Amino acid sequence: MSELKSYHMPPEEFRRLGYQLIDWIAEYQQRVADLPVCSQSRPGGVRAKLPPHPPQTGENLQALFSDLETIILPGITHWQSPNFFAYFPANTSAPAILGELLSAGLGVQGMLWATSPACTELETHMMDWMVELLGLPESFSSRGAGGGVIQDSASSAAVCAIIAARERINALRSNESGCDGRLTAYASTQAHSSIEKGIKIAGIGRDNLRLVDVDENLAMIPEALERAIAADIAAGKKPFFVTATIGTTASNALDPLMRIGAIARKHHLWFHVDGAMSGMAAICPEYRPIQEGLHLADSYCTNPHKWLFTNFDCDCFFVADRKALIESLSILPEYLRNQATESGAVIDYRDWQVSLGRRFRALKLWLVLRHYGIEGLQYHLRRHIQLAREFAEWVRQDANFELAAPAPLNLVCFRHRGGEAVNQALLDRLNHSGKLCLSHARLRDRLTLRFCVGQTHSERIHVENAWRHIQNTATQIVKESDQI
Amino acid sequence: MSELKSYHMPPEEFRRLGYQLIDWIAEYQQRVADLPVCSQSRPGGVRAKLPPHPPQTGENLQALFSDLETIILPGITHWQSPNFFAYFPANTSAPAILGELLSAGLGVQGMLWATSPACTELETHMMDWMVELLGLPESFSSRGAGGGVIQDSASSAAVCAIIAARERINALRSNESGCDGRLTAYASTQAHSSIEKGIKIAGIGRDNLRLVDVDENLAMIPEALERAIAADIAAGKKPFFVTATIGTTASNALDPLMRIGAIARKHHLWFHVDGAMSGMAAICPEYRPIQEGLHLADSYCTNPHKWLFTNFDCDCFFVADRKALIESLSILPEYLRNQATESGAVIDYRDWQVSLGRRFRALKLWLVLRHYGIEGLQYHLRRHIQLAREFAEWVRQDANFELAAPAPLNLVCFRHRGGEAVNQALLDRLNHSGKLCLSHARLRDRLTLRFCVGQTHSERIHVENAWRHIQNTATQIVKESDQI
Repeated sequence: MSELKSYHMPPEEFRRLGYQLIDWIAEYQQRVADLPVCSQSRPGGVRAKLPPHPPQTGENLQALFSDLETIILPGITHWQSPNFFAYFPANTSAPAILGELLSAGLGVQGMLWATSPACTELETHMMDWMVELLGLPESFSSRGAGGGVIQDSASSAAVCAIIAARERINALRSNESGCDGRLTAYASTQAHSSIEKGIKIAGIGRDNLRLVDVDENLAMIPEALERAIAADIAAGKKPFFVTATIGTTASNALDPLMRIGAIARKHHLWFHVDGAMSGMAAICPEYRPIQEGLHLADSYCTNPHKWLFTNFDCDCFFVADRKALIESLSILPEYLRNQATESGAVIDYRDWQVSLGRRFRALKLWLVLRHYGIEGLQYHLRRHIQLAREFAEWVRQDANFELAAPAPLNLVCFRHRGGEAVNQALLDRLNHSGKLCLSHARLRDRLTLRFCVGQTHSERIHVENAWRHIQNTATQIVKESDQI
Repeated sequence: MSELKSYHMPPEEFRRLGYQLIDWIAEYQQRVADLPVCSQSRPGGVRAKLPPHPPQTGENLQALFSDLETIILPGITHWQSPNFFAYFPANTSAPAILGELLSAGLGVQGMLWATSPACTELETHMMDWMVELLGLPESFSSRGAGGGVIQDSASSAAVCAIIAARERINALRSNESGCDGRLTAYASTQAHSSIEKGIKIAGIGRDNLRLVDVDENLAMIPEALERAIAADIAAGKKPFFVTATIGTTASNALDPLMRIGAIARKHHLWFHVDGAMSGMAAICPEYRPIQEGLHLADSYCTNPHKWLFTNFDCDCFFVADRKALIESLSILPEYLRNQATESGAVIDYRDWQVSLGRRFRALKLWLVLRHYGIEGLQYHLRRHIQLAREFAEWVRQDANFELAAPAPLNLVCFRHRGGEAVNQALLDRLNHSGKLCLSHARLRDRLTLRFCVGQTHSERIHVENAWRHIQNTATQIVKESDQI
């Protein structure tokens, strides 16, 4: 077949566009600090600029670069801006971007060991590296009965943990015959919404998820958990699953893992720990106390795509007993059978997740760990935590503001003392300013602003500017309301 | 902070490595045809070459390029080789690779419209383009009550369809109170394993999935479906879900959608159609009859990451009633509330999938559709189908071989007439030869070789060489067994 009629992009054009795109990304990283952080786009605004129909004939992709400026960038909320302090970060870095490019270039499908041994083995190896990097219990390493896998997100990890728990308590009978209506699960009122979603997906039902009360620091009260379990047992229910959080989404509360784990062990519940962002702090030995008690956990997850410079998606999900997970999720149709699988000597990661297919995500984590080294990663996480602590101190020192919760790591929850309306106006005006992006939560039913320092390139100057802008905007809002 | 102590990769180093990686990928695409297709790596072989511990200090990533040659490539089964004919393809292309790179470079999190409107709106727009490109029922476009979303895989799409179906039949009561043990689902004996996995995940239980018998072409027998539903109703069960397949994984059988859809409508079952690979053939008007009856479907999926040159992950999942899907999967914690969501004027794709987080996958599909145009995509799919038909004809003309199933599109199921042992030896020896990669299935309990033409750069020469190699290897095996 002639090159002329192939419609494929010739290699020289791929190289030319590829170089240009690498340049574009390098420049984007440099100028993103100056772009309005939150998109000011209105509903339908992006679509209105796109052609209504797919093109009949191909076009030269050189046009992409102007389209990026006029169509895409105005609709982007810049998660990679150093002025982005909203939600939890989704930070990335140059080595991660290169790793994602390489993964796309190789285009392998890692559903089975046999479909690309390197895809599976590099992943297992990186998960063992993470066990070491984080100082995790040896039960999570592949050297024993457990092991790690990359999931797309902590939500998917939660679904897998819930399914494995559901099957363990009932000896795989839910998989066979459907859910046992007596199963009950436990999480604090502050647990991530993905737990409730996972409970629904798994057929357990929201009515069977007990939201356990929290203490003054918004951390789960173990006695309340114990009481809830006892009441359910007395009522003929079958408690099967409890989740604790290292750094809740709303306020970064740290649940007491040791005591929750002991209760879980006593009652034979599957104990899942969600350390989606804050668990990463454990790469610094001085923060390892946050994961004390993790040796009691059946499963754990923490996300390099949140706070380890590895672009989404990269959630590290660890289990202490891989057999329990695999038995719950394994399906082996004939067309996937192969000698390596039958030998039992290999890992087939399709049995560790919901999906069958999977791409080569370990590459990006590999490049990040190699580029930064333990030392570089620790440096940046310590820096983020330090900046957040300074920010918290500034809040404390300003009589107009107050902290809304303890700030143990890189998230500061605070509010203006002027009441709900002032805080709502402050949130809206700051996000409309383009100068920074932050988000909110309700803590004990009061509106709270969330300021999370975790973007790769956030430096002191960005945090200082943000605080000054917050103060000035609040002053302006109060002045305006006084004038009314 | 000084650049010196930042540990970040300087922009000039990112550019240099980025260019090199673009070059490496361009060269990889050129030389991949000459590499052994199936990895010959042994269990543990890749890990043995990796450092046991994560590096304390960062290293220069220039070493990546030699590591790729010595550690990674020997462990790769080359899905992008034109000699790869196994499973279903996971084909990719230059514009898709660039799109993935761009997505990583922007690093946005598209969980909500508000977290990057362009991420959501480009995706909705691409899904509407796909409706047009494939000639899908207008019910699947965002202009009406339905719409499309990119899932990571057809497995995840199946889970979402099953959950939406489960909630529709019970007015969301399973989400509230847990699964109703009376629910029953239906699929043919040839349906993909992800259906069984999804049924288990959703708490329905495998015992409640009826595997309906197939006809001589391995397509579902509608009368058998009707009988199974009637028997379940008579037994007090609640039939709620049926799935049909456009091109089953084992043999590419085409279920009769029109008749299955009519039965689903009659009994108020959710009708999900899985067209993971073969559904893509509908971009050519002459193959649209394969999707006749799709207007009766509640949901449908087909994968650009299989057969539309868009690297994994990119599954297009369409629903006719988006409200049913969203109600089943929606969770709205305070920290995700925002004005755009409350207004109801926007799509928040986190409610269309299991996970909360999502990356900007529409970019790669956009670049593929723009680069090839409808014309270029049709050209390649027609070419693949034509090559598979020629291959099937060669099988037919060789007295030593036989077709094991009809070959309506790009998958040919065939076997040597010499019996199980010869076919097993043939499969093993071909895959060990490094010259081609194919896979197998059992059809009516007989070992069958599967030859699927769908890799981006597979041309007539590769298919011809493969067939010659298959013939010669078979001759050799038969000769050897005669000598024993």
